[in-house]
Amino acid sequence: MDAPVLLTGSEGRVGRAILDRLAAEYDWRLLDREPPAEERPGEFVIADITDYDEVREAMEGVGAVIHLAGDPRPEAPWDSVLRNNIDGTHTVMEAAVDAGVEKFAFASSNHAVGAYETEARTPEIYRPDDEFLLDGTELPRPGNRYGVSKATGETLGRFFHDEHDLSVVCVRVGNLTEGHPPEDYERGQAMWLSHRDCAHLFECCLEAEYDYEIVYGISDNDRKYYSIERAREALGYDPQDNSAEHDD
Amino acid sequence: MDAPVLLTGSEGRVGRAILDRLAAEYDWRLLDREPPAEERPGEFVIADITDYDEVREAMEGVGAVIHLAGDPRPEAPWDSVLRNNIDGTHTVMEAAVDAGVEKFAFASSNHAVGAYETEARTPEIYRPDDEFLLDGTELPRPGNRYGVSKATGETLGRFFHDEHDLSVVCVRVGNLTEGHPPEDYERGQAMWLSHRDCAHLFECCLEAEYDYEIVYGISDNDRKYYSIERAREALGYDPQDNSAEHDD
Repeated sequence: MDAPVLLTGSEGRVGRAILDRLAAEYDWRLLDREPPAEERPGEFVIADITDYDEVREAMEGVGAVIHLAGDPRPEAPWDSVLRNNIDGTHTVMEAAVDAGVEKFAFASSNHAVGAYETEARTPEIYRPDDEFLLDGTELPRPGNRYGVSKATGETLGRFFHDEHDLSVVCVRVGNLTEGHPPEDYERGQAMWLSHRDCAHLFECCLEAEYDYEIVYGISDNDRKYYSIERAREALGYDPQDNSAEHDD
Repeated sequence: MDAPVLLTGSEGRVGRAILDRLAAEYDWRLLDREPPAEERPGEFVIADITDYDEVREAMEGVGAVIHLAGDPRPEAPWDSVLRNNIDGTHTVMEAAVDAGVEKFAFASSNHAVGAYETEARTPEIYRPDDEFLLDGTELPRPGNRYGVSKATGETLGRFFHDEHDLSVVCVRVGNLTEGHPPEDYERGQAMWLSHRDCAHLFECCLEAEYDYEIVYGISDNDRKYYSIERAREALGYDPQDNSAEHDD
């Protein structure tokens, strides 16, 4: 990807994980509602993703988008996810299509399928010998309104792909923590995504050729109930970390 | 169902098909934004479904909801489906849960999966000998923003079922026409839903016991690419009409 890459929500946790490792690899255009707290690579645009004109201007000349912006709180109230996550994602995707963007990576979330973790399945589902596995072809099953908003973003991506031929990949991001996996928290270990694997996965989203994909964004953990096969096949994802093997 | 049934969007086409045949069968509470043009059974509430307080008041004592209200236009702009269909459905479902409603039938649409009708598949997909079949377990694939909004309503239903144990059935309504199926229109014949079968299907939604279901709402047409097996199994749906057998 030689053209500029627009990264929305650059000041969030996923954005920092990506930029920490890929700052020099792309011609970045970063977008967030507030100015950055520290120095960032490339150009910085202060904009609200629900403002079409601002987003459309930031989209000019862009080859690919990594769309992370939105309310990241699992417990966020409906009004906020309706505006920031659902309407905001529609705005960013529409502006991308209007600007002729080729590839669009959307940060979806494990919360889009959180309610598969029923009482009957947990905690066994988090353990290596359990066979329950989601692979991205299942219907969404959100455990909160934030998850509903992420599932809707995936459906919007499907629509903009089918209607406008935008390449769209939805990454159901797991539990991103820096340095080491969550301790004493089986669920977090099962869906751990290391910073290294996170940056690599989004780099794959910028480099691979795809139509429309839903993939799980976790490291190659022994504990897992998300399949990473589709990320490997469609994107060439090759994770290096495993929550079971991590030394502090 | 002995308790009152709240039917939102009673003045729309689906609402009239239901009330024409089931007026005397239930204790109806009808809700729409404008007063009815002709006499209606039961009680009539004038309210906007995006107003929680109005909807919550209409929900008092209700045993089941048939939620049809929303912008019904396949070409409706995003702002309208965001407000009326996505936010409106969230409001009605939340009010239903808060009022202790047991069953909730949501009028989804064939447009939630309209983009499965690709150029490569059509028009063969509309013909009796074609084997392509959607059964409700597939991911949404909307052909327009209206379809995105209906897919989101389905996901909201999943959430309210998982979180609050509301019984939810999403009916992907086909092509509802009165009297006879669409003529010289293969797609319309493939997804025809007669008025008689429509009323029967929503009656099943009020009478059957279910957790969360997505079913297709079409008659038993020879031409079809929607399976009605799940509607038969989960709801006891037993359609009487078939677009191929209809005499004018």
